[in-house]
Amino acid sequence: MRYSKLLLPTLRETPSDCDNVSQSLMMRGAMLKKVAGGLFVYLPYFNMLLEKIKKVIRDGMDKAGSSECKFPILVLKEDLDASGRWETFGKEMFRLKDRNDREYAISPTNEEYACFVAKTYVKSYNDLPLSVYQIQQKHRDEIRPRGGVMRAREFYMKDAYSFHRDEKDLDIYFDLMRKVYIDIFRSLSLEVVAVGADNGAMGGSGSEEIMAVCETGDSLIGVCECGFAANAETISCSAGEEKTEKSGLYEKIYTPSVSTISEVTDFLKMPQSAFVKTMLYEADGDIIAVLIRGDREINETKLKKYLGCSALELASFEAVSKKTNSVIGFAGPVNLKGVKKIIADLEVLSMENYITGANEKDYHFKNVNNSDFKYEKADIRFADESAVCEKCGRKLVFKRANELGHIFKLGKRYTDKLDITYIDSDSKAKTMFMGCYGIGLERTAASIIEQHHDEKGMVLPLSVAPFKVNVIAVDTANEKQYKAAEKIYNQLIKKNIEVLFDDRDARAGVKFNDSDLLGIPFKIIVGKNIEKGEVEIQPRKGEKSFVKTTDCVKLILKTLKEKNGI
Amino acid sequence: MRYSKLLLPTLRETPSDCDNVSQSLMMRGAMLKKVAGGLFVYLPYFNMLLEKIKKVIRDGMDKAGSSECKFPILVLKEDLDASGRWETFGKEMFRLKDRNDREYAISPTNEEYACFVAKTYVKSYNDLPLSVYQIQQKHRDEIRPRGGVMRAREFYMKDAYSFHRDEKDLDIYFDLMRKVYIDIFRSLSLEVVAVGADNGAMGGSGSEEIMAVCETGDSLIGVCECGFAANAETISCSAGEEKTEKSGLYEKIYTPSVSTISEVTDFLKMPQSAFVKTMLYEADGDIIAVLIRGDREINETKLKKYLGCSALELASFEAVSKKTNSVIGFAGPVNLKGVKKIIADLEVLSMENYITGANEKDYHFKNVNNSDFKYEKADIRFADESAVCEKCGRKLVFKRANELGHIFKLGKRYTDKLDITYIDSDSKAKTMFMGCYGIGLERTAASIIEQHHDEKGMVLPLSVAPFKVNVIAVDTANEKQYKAAEKIYNQLIKKNIEVLFDDRDARAGVKFNDSDLLGIPFKIIVGKNIEKGEVEIQPRKGEKSFVKTTDCVKLILKTLKEKNGI
Repeated sequence: MRYSKLLLPTLRETPSDCDNVSQSLMMRGAMLKKVAGGLFVYLPYFNMLLEKIKKVIRDGMDKAGSSECKFPILVLKEDLDASGRWETFGKEMFRLKDRNDREYAISPTNEEYACFVAKTYVKSYNDLPLSVYQIQQKHRDEIRPRGGVMRAREFYMKDAYSFHRDEKDLDIYFDLMRKVYIDIFRSLSLEVVAVGADNGAMGGSGSEEIMAVCETGDSLIGVCECGFAANAETISCSAGEEKTEKSGLYEKIYTPSVSTISEVTDFLKMPQSAFVKTMLYEADGDIIAVLIRGDREINETKLKKYLGCSALELASFEAVSKKTNSVIGFAGPVNLKGVKKIIADLEVLSMENYITGANEKDYHFKNVNNSDFKYEKADIRFADESAVCEKCGRKLVFKRANELGHIFKLGKRYTDKLDITYIDSDSKAKTMFMGCYGIGLERTAASIIEQHHDEKGMVLPLSVAPFKVNVIAVDTANEKQYKAAEKIYNQLIKKNIEVLFDDRDARAGVKFNDSDLLGIPFKIIVGKNIEKGEVEIQPRKGEKSFVKTTDCVKLILKTLKEKNGI
Repeated sequence: MRYSKLLLPTLRETPSDCDNVSQSLMMRGAMLKKVAGGLFVYLPYFNMLLEKIKKVIRDGMDKAGSSECKFPILVLKEDLDASGRWETFGKEMFRLKDRNDREYAISPTNEEYACFVAKTYVKSYNDLPLSVYQIQQKHRDEIRPRGGVMRAREFYMKDAYSFHRDEKDLDIYFDLMRKVYIDIFRSLSLEVVAVGADNGAMGGSGSEEIMAVCETGDSLIGVCECGFAANAETISCSAGEEKTEKSGLYEKIYTPSVSTISEVTDFLKMPQSAFVKTMLYEADGDIIAVLIRGDREINETKLKKYLGCSALELASFEAVSKKTNSVIGFAGPVNLKGVKKIIADLEVLSMENYITGANEKDYHFKNVNNSDFKYEKADIRFADESAVCEKCGRKLVFKRANELGHIFKLGKRYTDKLDITYIDSDSKAKTMFMGCYGIGLERTAASIIEQHHDEKGMVLPLSVAPFKVNVIAVDTANEKQYKAAEKIYNQLIKKNIEVLFDDRDARAGVKFNDSDLLGIPFKIIVGKNIEKGEVEIQPRKGEKSFVKTTDCVKLILKTLKEKNGI
């Protein structure tokens, strides 16, 4: 394609609201333009990258014997009622009514219609296993969209669903899908690790996440030398000795206009670990107080699992003031009223004489102890550096990572409810076992950029680069350079090489910088040396070299072939 | 692909609720499964067909120098307010709120964000023209989804938007897009005609529809020998002599339990043309009565244009009984109260002594005349066989057709409202001219089937057939046949031919019928003659022939090449 004809508007500066390097490079590299929180226009260069990723995913799904379908984006409420998900999905699912007041959700995933397909077309055990998938846009009403496309409200997901005669067959297919997933991500030049994970809202008997290790990843994983790896959300934390001796020592202290942990600890000149944070949540309509050491974070996945609730969110200002005697920013467990229960993280149990809020604006309590209030204890914090491997007992190493894929053994969770049966060889109707398997396409794209970039921009792997080669006429106004560059461009097109021809009337430096920013694997630079019959080949990473103009197409083809870029 | 591994569930019988041949063949030919009114699961075979169509469309858009983007499906209310479409789009647009009560529509088309892209990236006249497009799922809350995917509530649309320095440049691009569209549809083996059309809700200064002539098409077009063609919606009807002499002759007659036109005319033993239908509409909140001869249909496009309203729908039972003195089924213009106006179709003006409803259950009036009530006259019916060509005066021939594409000169309609300007060579900011260009993908697929089928099933053109060849082992249990068929299958795959291998353990007749139903262009049948070293090549249309087993791949390749199937 010709740069002059393509909407490829690179930026010199990083926009101000970027959370991570991939977002910054996608904004600068002519991929994204933000429309609203979590909603973006995808520009052509990102579309092309996504098409590459789709192709690799489709090839993988072919290998898994999965048939590509397309399920409706609009899902009837009655179908989500049948599976129980209308209720459990909470506020993340967009809902709407049609002109006849019939209710729908915008599909978060599509278990219900996948089950409908299995119910329609699977008659006997001979028709099993069945695997279907789609690559479809999904919507989630995220509270805090962030990280560009990493946590957006509209995104592509490859969602696959498999149906089986028995648990053993599901297990075999689940293992195959893990392998297919790892192959898919490796084909996309991603370093990934499969980790044990929580099933969350999907339910079922087991799940694994495929994670790409990235410095700015939004998940935390614990990895052991022995090969074990797990999402930090699922790693248990140990309890220390429970202190219950002291009580009644607490005193109210005046802490004017300080409400965040760091403000309070600065004001009192105490470490954050001497403080117990009291977080107020709304869980299925009830207010719950959760206590955690001041320097720790609550793991909402663990908390949700412990509570067994379907909807969990930080309580609103309004709910707190209406239902409790407390104040956001000054909540504490002592004399707290209007909450259903107080849950203390295991680590809090071994603390003594700590600081908490006093449920009154501008006041805290010091010298609070566990016996000053009633609580339930639970492991509800993220695993920390003290966590050990559940397989071998060694210390875990923690890394940040992005979840790219999530594979679930759903078992009979949906098929029981939706009555998805087949006739077995003994002529009896039996319930199918089900699995489901997702990949987030934008997260995959962003992680490729996270793992492949340098200070100049993206360094796209050949396997996914939308353009393999960038032909640059250094001085477009110089007819000889322009014509020679155009000739090389046309020769590469004839060889089916994806090539960008930078035919813009711009300074050479701008063209080189854009090429580096866009991460195109090879530049062919047509400059002054054209007079000597030479052009320059410059890999995005590696040594540049002058070659004969007449040889350059042949050389590039050879290099691409060696590197499996074509 | 192997039939046994693919979800390709053909049906022997047509499901009961099919409106046209393409819907029937898509249901039987393993393409669609209905989930709810206007919502379908697309099965793999349909997905594959859509991918073929996408490819052809993308190639066409490349030729038009258009850059593929992806705009959000969710469009903010404030952005649709700015363009005025939140108001004008009426009930066809799905609307929803997010968790913060912010309102969105599910994008019907995406003018607003295309303008946003132009606003962001076009600075000067040097950046124009700009053309962007997407292939995206769209949603419309149709009152009456019908014809399978022909009028569904969820469908793929290719929507393109172009921006220009002046009207002349828009005109040039509009002509290019017409040509590109016709080329796209011809590449898809569709016979199409470009017709003048109404701009409808999109507005702007002119539009054309690209129509595929199909027996069960849902549009009516008038075509002239001279080359002129137009949507019947836009063809003017002539008026006869207006009769205003008689009045006061009408008498009430008892017509118990007859309310439809055919019931009434049967009951009174009169032709439908002696009757004047009175249709009550709600137009932007007002009730309007519309009179038309009993055997004619109201053209709502003309009516909407005449009224200049944004929302037009038949009035509900509730609205009629609340706001008027009439009764649905017995409405008539004489003594009608509560309507804003009565509009008489031109043809009604030359009628005398006709029958109408009496605004009372079970009663009609006979001998009604135009002077018995006040009315406005307007051309609001579909053109009929008497219509003549506006260019040359010859009689028009009317044909049924499906609208596949619609191209619009929007002019400054949106760019003025949304302030989309560029800096011209005289350093002044000027408003861009805009065009937009849509293609409905499912309608295109259905029309291909409408134009290419016979009594056995689809006859897919090579250009779009998902599988070019079907390799059939007549007796799968016969090892020699199976192995030979599998070998041919593998050889074709190596040559990158899209091939289906019917490896099912089924009767040969079932396999042949399925192959014909699916419309696969060529069968290679491996049967008893394999003993003589021969297989059969059978085109979907044309003579079958026995060929040497060793030659069959070479022969098929040669044929496909000749027919540009590869």
